[in-house]
Amino acid sequence: MAQKPSIPKGTRDFSPVEMLRRKYIFSTIEKVFQKYGFLPLETPAMENLETLTGKYGEEGDRLIFKILNSGDWKAGLNDEDVSEEIREQIESIVLEDLKDSKEKVVEFSEELVRTVRAATNKYYRTRDIAEKALRYDLTVPFARYVVQHQNEIAFPFKRYQIQPVWRADRPQKGRYREFYQCDADVIGSRSLISEVELVQLFDDVFTALGLQVVVKINDRKVLSGIAEVSGQPEKVVDIVTAIDKLDKIGREKVEEEMRTKGVSDEAIKGIAPLFELKGTWSEQRPLLEKWLASSVTAQQGLKDLSFTFDAVGSMKSAILEFDPTLARGLDYYTGAIFEVKAAEGTMPGSICGGGRYDDLTGIFGLKNMSGVGISFGADRIYDVLLETNKFPAELGGSTKLLFANFGEAEAMHCLKLLRQVREAGIAAELYPDQVKMAKQFKYADDKGIAYVAIIGENELKQGIVTVKDMKTGEQKAIKQDELIHEIQ
Amino acid sequence: MAQKPSIPKGTRDFSPVEMLRRKYIFSTIEKVFQKYGFLPLETPAMENLETLTGKYGEEGDRLIFKILNSGDWKAGLNDEDVSEEIREQIESIVLEDLKDSKEKVVEFSEELVRTVRAATNKYYRTRDIAEKALRYDLTVPFARYVVQHQNEIAFPFKRYQIQPVWRADRPQKGRYREFYQCDADVIGSRSLISEVELVQLFDDVFTALGLQVVVKINDRKVLSGIAEVSGQPEKVVDIVTAIDKLDKIGREKVEEEMRTKGVSDEAIKGIAPLFELKGTWSEQRPLLEKWLASSVTAQQGLKDLSFTFDAVGSMKSAILEFDPTLARGLDYYTGAIFEVKAAEGTMPGSICGGGRYDDLTGIFGLKNMSGVGISFGADRIYDVLLETNKFPAELGGSTKLLFANFGEAEAMHCLKLLRQVREAGIAAELYPDQVKMAKQFKYADDKGIAYVAIIGENELKQGIVTVKDMKTGEQKAIKQDELIHEIQ
Repeated sequence: MAQKPSIPKGTRDFSPVEMLRRKYIFSTIEKVFQKYGFLPLETPAMENLETLTGKYGEEGDRLIFKILNSGDWKAGLNDEDVSEEIREQIESIVLEDLKDSKEKVVEFSEELVRTVRAATNKYYRTRDIAEKALRYDLTVPFARYVVQHQNEIAFPFKRYQIQPVWRADRPQKGRYREFYQCDADVIGSRSLISEVELVQLFDDVFTALGLQVVVKINDRKVLSGIAEVSGQPEKVVDIVTAIDKLDKIGREKVEEEMRTKGVSDEAIKGIAPLFELKGTWSEQRPLLEKWLASSVTAQQGLKDLSFTFDAVGSMKSAILEFDPTLARGLDYYTGAIFEVKAAEGTMPGSICGGGRYDDLTGIFGLKNMSGVGISFGADRIYDVLLETNKFPAELGGSTKLLFANFGEAEAMHCLKLLRQVREAGIAAELYPDQVKMAKQFKYADDKGIAYVAIIGENELKQGIVTVKDMKTGEQKAIKQDELIHEIQ
Repeated sequence: MAQKPSIPKGTRDFSPVEMLRRKYIFSTIEKVFQKYGFLPLETPAMENLETLTGKYGEEGDRLIFKILNSGDWKAGLNDEDVSEEIREQIESIVLEDLKDSKEKVVEFSEELVRTVRAATNKYYRTRDIAEKALRYDLTVPFARYVVQHQNEIAFPFKRYQIQPVWRADRPQKGRYREFYQCDADVIGSRSLISEVELVQLFDDVFTALGLQVVVKINDRKVLSGIAEVSGQPEKVVDIVTAIDKLDKIGREKVEEEMRTKGVSDEAIKGIAPLFELKGTWSEQRPLLEKWLASSVTAQQGLKDLSFTFDAVGSMKSAILEFDPTLARGLDYYTGAIFEVKAAEGTMPGSICGGGRYDDLTGIFGLKNMSGVGISFGADRIYDVLLETNKFPAELGGSTKLLFANFGEAEAMHCLKLLRQVREAGIAAELYPDQVKMAKQFKYADDKGIAYVAIIGENELKQGIVTVKDMKTGEQKAIKQDELIHEIQ
């Protein structure tokens, strides 16, 4: 009874080629994380359902994958409640209506079945049969970890975490039900030095990946200030949510949306200077200071931004840009807001995001823990690097040399050479079976192996090896003890 | 409404220190895998439930974590079946018994409630509300992958896979509900060269980890031969299962178990030479050849073992040992069987296992795919390295230098030096806040940072830096441009 194998929709297998590329991205990011003093953390895939629910809004709650209780999951189904409801209905129906006729009994049966079904739907609750769920992001488990281990942690706590998350989203192009998140956070300090370092970290990562990027920065306090000076500070969420869409829908639609949300024409007029802002941070700063002069909050935001711009200094390949319309997850961020976009390729969306939050751990009872974090979108970075042809030709981890197999005597000899090659740190293998050379070459080709070492009867006798460069097709015979030098 | 945070029983958080140690183990193994031509593969955490069920025996099926269908999971509950059963019962009961009395109605209601409950338990099936499950091991997903992608794969396929698996086992000391497996397999070749390479690979990994190990090897064909010459070949499973326990329960109990399972006294006598075997492979081999002379299967097994022993040659730190009682997962392995035990520390169980299987992919319809694979027990290796104090003093990835924070002017200056230090590849950080030195030193200590660089007002003026070695407590003042050299 062979099954035709498949995987759940929205999930992916990663083939060796894809894995080597993904590992290249993750290890590049990870090395920079570590160079900046971030240390790794891993939390379990499963969290208690109550740890996750209520943290991502109503829509988010629906998208959490729940794990059926192991053992007798039915034990959690609340039969008592169902029974009670049915009993009451039976008694009321039977006592009032039931006559001793077959027709009445059938009618009664049908009504009862409807009652059972309704009671089932009413009383069988997810939380009765599922107490665990798959993590939905890395942020809530991180907050849970910090609170749970607050007495063991050396604050400020700099951690990175690279693990998959799961969301029961409708699968579609570029949206998966399982995907990796790649986060770094500093928690337990309000110092802007962290913001400065995170901008430099973006620069280091994308310099290492060879990708030109723009790091956009804003400050939530500037956004609050804009709402203040517009005269409708209470509308800050609606104003900012609309402004955030400027990129996609243009000024007219942004103003229309504000109007729909009850922002007055006067307030909309008050926001107008935002759309006129142009140029570098040093050009925009005096204009903003003047425009937002009456907002203490905004002034603090501008001061913080200035600190960051000044302290970051020159960058290697990234460009730091102020974007007063950037708002990402407004409910969440309280200070700096970051977004990174590729300056090459056609990826429209951001490839990284982040910002400062003042109350991440409050949901678990630990107040006043300010933090700032960033997140790398691995799948999007993968797509950009592939599109712009930026993956290195030789990815770390791929095999460099294949010894062809010409039979037992030759293979035994190759095993010895193979060992020397590996000792020299070169990834190499011996084709395990004696099959046609064409098949062995095809294997090397399919696996992207750079060189094939051929030791047939002749080579064995003469102590030589014929090395074939799989890219150029060139072959040359060399002494066996020159092999390592030749392919290094 | 703060919740006291916790994680599901049997799961673990891995703190930064634990993570650095785990990463050291995994990256050591991974580098060797790659040096041997194995390439990485990842499969999704969720598989279709039908991919997993029936692959691990009845007990295994129970231990698979199922994922509740997303969206309306109740839609899968088969109310129709429940309704039908209830309807039939109502009709039979009502028509036969029900009189127009209140007492009868109550009695009927109660019976009906029992019926509802029974029907619920009978008809509400796991498969109706859960179509996906968490992977239970890496082997079945690997087999699924090979069959699904057979036309894209270059065989023999050498892949490694390092991912967590989940089992709804009763949590207890050393047994977790989420743990990493770390597997390497060659599939699509019968060549014994793979066995040879896997033994060398064990040697390379444990040499790199600095741990003395014994690699035990046996061959399923030798075990079959023993059952053959005992005169009860049909009892091979019972005989081998008993023999496998020799280590733990001793010869007497092994023979007792065989007797209970219906192995005749004569057969048990026939097996006796096994318990007398001693010495090295070259000492045991002639004895085995004589004893098992009548079994063609056993002779092939001995020949294969000889090939492996000869071709492996000398090893760097592992010892290869023949163990005729080794049987690990008998139903599964068809040729070589491997097990690795630590020769240091007190870990009683094996830290690696593996063997050759002839029909891994048959369950998914792809026949005749012979393969051989090994698996590293990361948690046990972790425990052994910790117990025997084999983790390197300086684990890759940890921070080496902390710049103390003496206020804004000093911090701004440190940011520039910090950048140079990082450019030199040294993991370093600047304490983000200006707090008491004691607190900053404690932070460095807690995080295992080797050096603290102190630049106060004085140092700033003089262009020097005081470097404190956190291990010895020594401090010395040096020129700032000597800092990198000093701590490298």
